[in-house]
Amino acid sequence: MAAPSVTYGVHSEVGQLRKVLVCAPGLAHRRLTPTNADDLLFDDVLWVENAQRDHADFVSDLRSHDVEVVELHDLLAETLAVPGAQDWLLDRTITPNEVGLGLVDGTRAFLESLPPRELAEFLIGGLATSDLPGDFRAGYVALARESTGVREYLLPPLPNTLYTRDTTCWLYGGVTLNPLYWPARHDETLLMKAVYEFHPDFVGSTVWWGDPERDWGQATFEGGDIMPVGNGVVLMGMSERTSRQAITQVAAALFAREAAEQVIVAGMPKLRAAMHLDTVFTFADRDIVTLFPNIMDGVHAFTLRPTDTGRGVDVTDEGDDASFVDVVARSLGLPKLHVVATAGDAYASERQQWDSGNNAVALRPGVVYTYDRNTQTNQLLRDAGVEVIPIVGAELGRGRGGGHCMTCPIIRDAVDY
Amino acid sequence: MAAPSVTYGVHSEVGQLRKVLVCAPGLAHRRLTPTNADDLLFDDVLWVENAQRDHADFVSDLRSHDVEVVELHDLLAETLAVPGAQDWLLDRTITPNEVGLGLVDGTRAFLESLPPRELAEFLIGGLATSDLPGDFRAGYVALARESTGVREYLLPPLPNTLYTRDTTCWLYGGVTLNPLYWPARHDETLLMKAVYEFHPDFVGSTVWWGDPERDWGQATFEGGDIMPVGNGVVLMGMSERTSRQAITQVAAALFAREAAEQVIVAGMPKLRAAMHLDTVFTFADRDIVTLFPNIMDGVHAFTLRPTDTGRGVDVTDEGDDASFVDVVARSLGLPKLHVVATAGDAYASERQQWDSGNNAVALRPGVVYTYDRNTQTNQLLRDAGVEVIPIVGAELGRGRGGGHCMTCPIIRDAVDY
Amino acid sequence: MAAPSVTYGVHSEVGQLRKVLVCAPGLAHRRLTPTNADDLLFDDVLWVENAQRDHADFVSDLRSHDVEVVELHDLLAETLAVPGAQDWLLDRTITPNEVGLGLVDGTRAFLESLPPRELAEFLIGGLATSDLPGDFRAGYVALARESTGVREYLLPPLPNTLYTRDTTCWLYGGVTLNPLYWPARHDETLLMKAVYEFHPDFVGSTVWWGDPERDWGQATFEGGDIMPVGNGVVLMGMSERTSRQAITQVAAALFAREAAEQVIVAGMPKLRAAMHLDTVFTFADRDIVTLFPNIMDGVHAFTLRPTDTGRGVDVTDEGDDASFVDVVARSLGLPKLHVVATAGDAYASERQQWDSGNNAVALRPGVVYTYDRNTQTNQLLRDAGVEVIPIVGAELGRGRGGGHCMTCPIIRDAVDY
Amino acid sequence: MAAPSVTYGVHSEVGQLRKVLVCAPGLAHRRLTPTNADDLLFDDVLWVENAQRDHADFVSDLRSHDVEVVELHDLLAETLAVPGAQDWLLDRTITPNEVGLGLVDGTRAFLESLPPRELAEFLIGGLATSDLPGDFRAGYVALARESTGVREYLLPPLPNTLYTRDTTCWLYGGVTLNPLYWPARHDETLLMKAVYEFHPDFVGSTVWWGDPERDWGQATFEGGDIMPVGNGVVLMGMSERTSRQAITQVAAALFAREAAEQVIVAGMPKLRAAMHLDTVFTFADRDIVTLFPNIMDGVHAFTLRPTDTGRGVDVTDEGDDASFVDVVARSLGLPKLHVVATAGDAYASERQQWDSGNNAVALRPGVVYTYDRNTQTNQLLRDAGVEVIPIVGAELGRGRGGGHCMTCPIIRDAVDY
Repeated sequence: MAAPSVTYGVHSEVGQLRKVLVCAPGLAHRRLTPTNADDLLFDDVLWVENAQRDHADFVSDLRSHDVEVVELHDLLAETLAVPGAQDWLLDRTITPNEVGLGLVDGTRAFLESLPPRELAEFLIGGLATSDLPGDFRAGYVALARESTGVREYLLPPLPNTLYTRDTTCWLYGGVTLNPLYWPARHDETLLMKAVYEFHPDFVGSTVWWGDPERDWGQATFEGGDIMPVGNGVVLMGMSERTSRQAITQVAAALFAREAAEQVIVAGMPKLRAAMHLDTVFTFADRDIVTLFPNIMDGVHAFTLRPTDTGRGVDVTDEGDDASFVDVVARSLGLPKLHVVATAGDAYASERQQWDSGNNAVALRPGVVYTYDRNTQTNQLLRDAGVEVIPIVGAELGRGRGGGHCMTCPIIRDAVDY
Repeated sequence: MAAPSVTYGVHSEVGQLRKVLVCAPGLAHRRLTPTNADDLLFDDVLWVENAQRDHADFVSDLRSHDVEVVELHDLLAETLAVPGAQDWLLDRTITPNEVGLGLVDGTRAFLESLPPRELAEFLIGGLATSDLPGDFRAGYVALARESTGVREYLLPPLPNTLYTRDTTCWLYGGVTLNPLYWPARHDETLLMKAVYEFHPDFVGSTVWWGDPERDWGQATFEGGDIMPVGNGVVLMGMSERTSRQAITQVAAALFAREAAEQVIVAGMPKLRAAMHLDTVFTFADRDIVTLFPNIMDGVHAFTLRPTDTGRGVDVTDEGDDASFVDVVARSLGLPKLHVVATAGDAYASERQQWDSGNNAVALRPGVVYTYDRNTQTNQLLRDAGVEVIPIVGAELGRGRGGGHCMTCPIIRDAVDY
Repeated sequence: MAAPSVTYGVHSEVGQLRKVLVCAPGLAHRRLTPTNADDLLFDDVLWVENAQRDHADFVSDLRSHDVEVVELHDLLAETLAVPGAQDWLLDRTITPNEVGLGLVDGTRAFLESLPPRELAEFLIGGLATSDLPGDFRAGYVALARESTGVREYLLPPLPNTLYTRDTTCWLYGGVTLNPLYWPARHDETLLMKAVYEFHPDFVGSTVWWGDPERDWGQATFEGGDIMPVGNGVVLMGMSERTSRQAITQVAAALFAREAAEQVIVAGMPKLRAAMHLDTVFTFADRDIVTLFPNIMDGVHAFTLRPTDTGRGVDVTDEGDDASFVDVVARSLGLPKLHVVATAGDAYASERQQWDSGNNAVALRPGVVYTYDRNTQTNQLLRDAGVEVIPIVGAELGRGRGGGHCMTCPIIRDAVDY
Repeated sequence: MAAPSVTYGVHSEVGQLRKVLVCAPGLAHRRLTPTNADDLLFDDVLWVENAQRDHADFVSDLRSHDVEVVELHDLLAETLAVPGAQDWLLDRTITPNEVGLGLVDGTRAFLESLPPRELAEFLIGGLATSDLPGDFRAGYVALARESTGVREYLLPPLPNTLYTRDTTCWLYGGVTLNPLYWPARHDETLLMKAVYEFHPDFVGSTVWWGDPERDWGQATFEGGDIMPVGNGVVLMGMSERTSRQAITQVAAALFAREAAEQVIVAGMPKLRAAMHLDTVFTFADRDIVTLFPNIMDGVHAFTLRPTDTGRGVDVTDEGDDASFVDVVARSLGLPKLHVVATAGDAYASERQQWDSGNNAVALRPGVVYTYDRNTQTNQLLRDAGVEVIPIVGAELGRGRGGGHCMTCPIIRDAVDY
């Protein structure tokens, strides 16, 4: 395979952002209903047109700052146009195990008849039995319609593609293809593998770890927990969704290829609000973080380092008294990190964390995107000298993800530590 | 491989039972707590000693009627004693994806130091970090202990092994190794594959379908939904846990090998109480069924038959007006099935269904085991001429399974239809 | 008491609206957090400033159409300025049973020191222990802070005041003071009683039924279920929140005073989405209704009429085959009602109902307010000749109520039937 | 009114028990189904016949130790036979607010036609619409049958009467008639008031506080949280169900009549397992307690004492470092309390607490009743010198209450402190 035309890599959390992957809301979000939203990991339904408008505004602002933004529907359509890619993907999705015996041939024929862009929309948005042409095989379709929930789909809707952060992670010069925690999200990684296998801009990238065609068992890994902060350090939240089984494997893979020197693990408290590390802790500048103290005060830190033998990892328990923020500061050679806590009284700060108030994504050092609605926390960030560019969050925030979750950086510069 | 010494096969739901697989309560049930019970699919905790006593009484009664009863802990211990079996199983369970990097070698060494019976107990009962010897690698163990729920286990507890019915199904002369719905139960099928690969009594059995080493996606299949009633017919409940994707594949496999002529699908209503077909419908005699009308009245029937080409299956929608019970009677060449409904008023019948009142398992035509607590339904069965042998259900029933769920017939005679 | 200066009364669902009670979002919504939202009957937190802006725009549009809009904070502040009113209300809220012994005197002194408008804000928004002055009695406050949820409040927050529709209902020439279903809303009716007892514009109104100072047991009644459609008919949804015990009492009270001739009861299906009748059925014009067929198809109709003796009510079961819409049409002397169903496919219509798509409130015949987000249903209403004025629903809709829920008409004209 | 023939009073938690109120399982438990159990506060359904047998065995054992046991169905039947009592109770339960207009007269006539014992069974067990004679008023009954859950009852079932501990508490020489937290239990206290108003053995008792005919708002109080330990001390758990609003009022009432000198409040952690203080902490002997450390370690203690003025209470916050057990020991003048913690590893102790392992009730100092199933904790109690008499808990324990919950002591001796 040829190497990508430019060198991809993410060398910090706050260095100049140069290229980023996003995914616009669309068909998958039109599938969300009060009945199935929980199964699809959304708290509420969206007004899809407005969500699309607000997402487009965000993308537009990124582009106005010279960030190259690639959108997943586009990227997938381009991928499907590459010879071999469509077959590769349909071979793996239109199977008796997923679509059901008797519907495989017809479903595949229907999908193959579509132009790449329309096919990409069904691959992300899902294919319901009601999407099939009217003359489809009646008995099988009747059987399928007796099924319920996600099983009424021949291809599952993937509304969480909106949060491109989770599915793949560029960690310094290579990428991970993440086994996601919930079965409802597994196919996201398969789509991304197709991109990395076939799209000319991505073929040849270095893959540190992960392959959606293998079963990873308890080893699940989501980008919302992972931050390549620079100085050879990667932060990893150990959460419901990101397990020690995956963390230790990725750490070992990075150490073996000398891509990182330390992994700092944030053992998240067992609370539902603490879904991913980036829902309670993100960087706003080289030495400024915004965090939600109610959760972060309960984090237990571990440091992973290479072993002398070069195989596996060494684990240091930083103890109950070590502050995660201090451990991170030390790893970056900083005397301390400046902390901007979620603003307001007990009620307001809990609400702002919930509304992704700490989920900032940096354009460059000291310039971040966050939702407009967290006005108090945004003001504290501004008071700390951070420039805050608002994203309209009325619809986009209903899946409990903010700017950090909606972006998968592909090229981001290092900063000095 | 050698064929089993006797010919295994299940040719009806009510013919003379000759050999059956059960699994005694044990370590896995000692792991159940109010906190983890839901995740492990139990509604409540058990008094394990009493559950063991009641289960032993049930086994004892089966044996007193000349049924050969094999118990899973014993069977697994015998399997592990076969050269190659222990390595085969530990290679597949003690992996970085499950146990976690850094704990693999030590955990394996610890398990290999155990006699087969003790190893079998951990494989079924789970291995907690606290079960490891005291001098184990401290950093890794600390990391593991920060994890929670099932992830705090190096090997997951498998309390649902109590319900041997689900994991494998003998359908006439062959068996299926079922991909179970909940991830919490996947490893059960791997243990059973080890038995079928290595145990001298099981090696060489005909496997119709299923392999726990493959990913089956939406194709999930649980024995509680499956009944080889005789006359070339198999009933399959299409439920939350048993999908059309699996049903059509198994039907096609049986048809291709001429092991069955029809599969009648019970499209279960979308209600939580209707977990498996056998929780609301079982056979008590050649032409007597016991059922819970509240659920069964909403079942939608389909009939699957071989296609002319011999590939795949033909699907007939029996329509909204067809009664499932009538479709089954017709398939058996019976004018009608005698129905014993769950007894009592609205309150009593709902409670008795919940307490597995319809979950009878036949010793021979007209003789069934059910829980003692469903006294009213048991009386109706007796009034219909059925002999009822009670099982003490105070503890065993708390996982919402009765005699049918707790037994996996291996040899059962045909009856005339 | 003096009669109100003008004659209040609501004589239809769609006649010209002349006076209406609303309640702006405020302090009570600042109390909502992810933790307490469920207890306070909200599905999500709001961006309060934006909710206030959107609500103010709605009020402003109403006023631009010559509707007199009274706002609850204002109304309550005016009420509190009437001699005796403040004592009446504080005597009933600042009690040992609510505030706790030891905090009564100080809390009352603190509240009495406030100007009426500030006091009104605490009465609606709740008083937390943290709102008390710093020098408050330490031991008692510490005890209070060990309590949790709503109990940490000395006065409970009442965020559901936003839905003024529920608390009181003008039915033709008189009003009901409703015993609401959830304890979390009981105090709303007490505030309204203060208004009706003391505010010069409301004193002397005819009260058909209800008194928040009495215990109504199972007799609960919420305005979202109640529609005085005209022609002597009142529709009443019998739902989780509005019981037959209340419906029959209110019907009897109306019949006894010859205020109505028939009550048509909509027996709602036992589904969570069917909270109130007005979440699935409202009038858009004299003979046009908008409804959600998934729920309304399951409604069972009863007609209540006066008895010959003039005491109690006669109940007619309209049977399983009678369509509720047809029963309503007949009662209005119409050949039929024109039905605008929730628009879109299965996914879209379920989402639009959820987003209050059928919760229209009429300005006058053929002119309604609905949320902007239900674009498809709004278009169908327009196609049917209805003028639709949008309300921005991004924040206001998060409590699952629309324009109908947020308005309590006080004067509305009759229409001809 | 005449005073009771003997002097009632409970002067300790472990002194000789002489008279106790219990309530046998019955009709109310036959109403429990998987659908309504949650609403009725039960985790599972019971085998009622076996529950009755096990309860009868417990009563029998108490009687064999010369304890006078009164049973609530008997007591209520005797009460109803007292002139005036039946009218008093039916006037308060067969009302339009509860039974519904149109059903009041007929329901009352039906109930008045019953002998006192049968009437008592319906008052405790609930009256369903299906219990009414066939010729009952059709329209009203049809309306009632469209309602659901508890509302389908004309009289609600009261299965929690099984836990007589909660409804009334003898604290030294007087009793409280407790406002219970859940509306589903409110009518229990009304039945007990009838007993105290009319039954010759109870008339004239001193009532410290509480009256089911008044609305107590946030002031809720349940006997499972209350322990008159002796030495003028009462322990009160401040929990979800017992509020500071009630605790301070009861303390003030006791202090005003010099019935107690101190109340020690256990501020329970906000965890579901910690329902009542007696589910995690009870006395087994004069200076021995059994407790569940996971919960009790998080308890925050307060001490309430009389004020100098004799009005209200003084509150002392014992601080985060004070151990509740030490505060209790000190109040009793003991150097320390001997603690028997729930036995076993993390799994076993969590299961035994859940199964009421710490919910012991003393027959006399050092002799307690507990469920048989908590074998490990029972052994530790025996090792500590406590005699343990087992109660069969297979069915009785399913409502999450043990021997302490099922008994309301009426006469218990003091012990020396």
